[in-house]
Amino acid sequence: MSAAEHQPDALSALRDELRRFAAEREWERFHTPKNLAMALSGEAGELIEHFQWLSAEQSASLPAPEREAVALEMADVLLYLVRMADVLGIDLADAARRKMAINARRYPVELARGRADKYDRL
Amino acid sequence: MSAAEHQPDALSALRDELRRFAAEREWERFHTPKNLAMALSGEAGELIEHFQWLSAEQSASLPAPEREAVALEMADVLLYLVRMADVLGIDLADAARRKMAINARRYPVELARGRADKYDRL
Amino acid sequence: MSAAEHQPDALSALRDELRRFAAEREWERFHTPKNLAMALSGEAGELIEHFQWLSAEQSASLPAPEREAVALEMADVLLYLVRMADVLGIDLADAARRKMAINARRYPVELARGRADKYDRL
Amino acid sequence: MSAAEHQPDALSALRDELRRFAAEREWERFHTPKNLAMALSGEAGELIEHFQWLSAEQSASLPAPEREAVALEMADVLLYLVRMADVLGIDLADAARRKMAINARRYPVELARGRADKYDRL
Repeated sequence: MSAAEHQPDALSALRDELRRFAAEREWERFHTPKNLAMALSGEAGELIEHFQWLSAEQSASLPAPEREAVALEMADVLLYLVRMADVLGIDLADAARRKMAINARRYPVELARGRADKYDRL
Repeated sequence: MSAAEHQPDALSALRDELRRFAAEREWERFHTPKNLAMALSGEAGELIEHFQWLSAEQSASLPAPEREAVALEMADVLLYLVRMADVLGIDLADAARRKMAINARRYPVELARGRADKYDRL
Repeated sequence: MSAAEHQPDALSALRDELRRFAAEREWERFHTPKNLAMALSGEAGELIEHFQWLSAEQSASLPAPEREAVALEMADVLLYLVRMADVLGIDLADAARRKMAINARRYPVELARGRADKYDRL
Repeated sequence: MSAAEHQPDALSALRDELRRFAAEREWERFHTPKNLAMALSGEAGELIEHFQWLSAEQSASLPAPEREAVALEMADVLLYLVRMADVLGIDLADAARRKMAINARRYPVELARGRADKYDRL
């Protein structure tokens, strides 16, 4: 048995669990990429509502119950993201690594340092 | 060396890489939870734009270039999600497992089968 | 008295009422453009949740209570949009007319007919 | 001719123009409530991207070109909102007035003054 089999990746484990969860409930027909993109966007909206009236400082020091509520909203985003990737046959971890490489090219350290500008304005 | 050290979790690896990426560019002061929630929501908006005029069927059979564009948008959502979790000190994989357990209780198989209703309407 | 004074525009009336509403509650300091953009986005997320699992057909024939809930979510989006425009000193109706003119140039009837493609792909 | 006929409401005028715009391009079949909710959410995402890295103060004093770009993004949100209301047969101005009345009850001046809490926490 290889190391990879001993230590399944968190994203792969979630993907498998979500796949089983949907299959048991016969939810596959609802889980089109279009619908999942909507659900993900709805959860992102719920997440943002926790922060809309907070100052930057307040957002960085949430009281414990609020922080736990935020953690579960973030989990919702992740669950829909992982499920959507599975339905589309996309390797999310691989896509993230490829996007990181793109970002590294777009935002060279010496140009991007201390600046929040988009890459096409650097 | 343990198996866990040989096979670091994809989410932990991304978290560390994003932390380094932000530090090198002195972006920490932009990366408040509030701002990252906004960035995540903006990326969710970009993702949804790929699907807004597609039928359910079209959304499930994207042409390869479109599918790759979608993969990179999904990567953006993941990157901001992982970064936001790091800044908030939230263990994303753990939150996802806890949310899965909540969902399992909210959506019992026998009640939820074949239905898209929210748990409070089951 | 001119006709315009007899028939104040719905958007201007809402703007004035929202301004008074915020002033009475001393909410001006929360109503930065940044925060209002977040609130608007959160409401857009709540709106989308009503539609995420519906087919196109179902979305066009909502039961009355659901349709009323949707109407109030759409109202929330409008209220934050009008309030945000006021805070930014933007004339929303004028911006809409200007954007319509841009869209008319971007989507000529003969090129855009029956197609959902973005203007840069026509 | 009444004053109301001389001074058509901006929202009604937009609704009629959007209806004609869609009909000329044979876009009605794309304009399901579901799809329009997605398009609206996508535009809200584009709007928020303008503000994500700004401080509260910066967001309130946008340079003129940025402010114009924001105005046009806000116009996009309004256009989809008005179009969606038309397709659903919802009177947007009326829904906004009804929601304002609800908000006035939910947020009594004496309880809500200076507080950003949601009504169920007042």
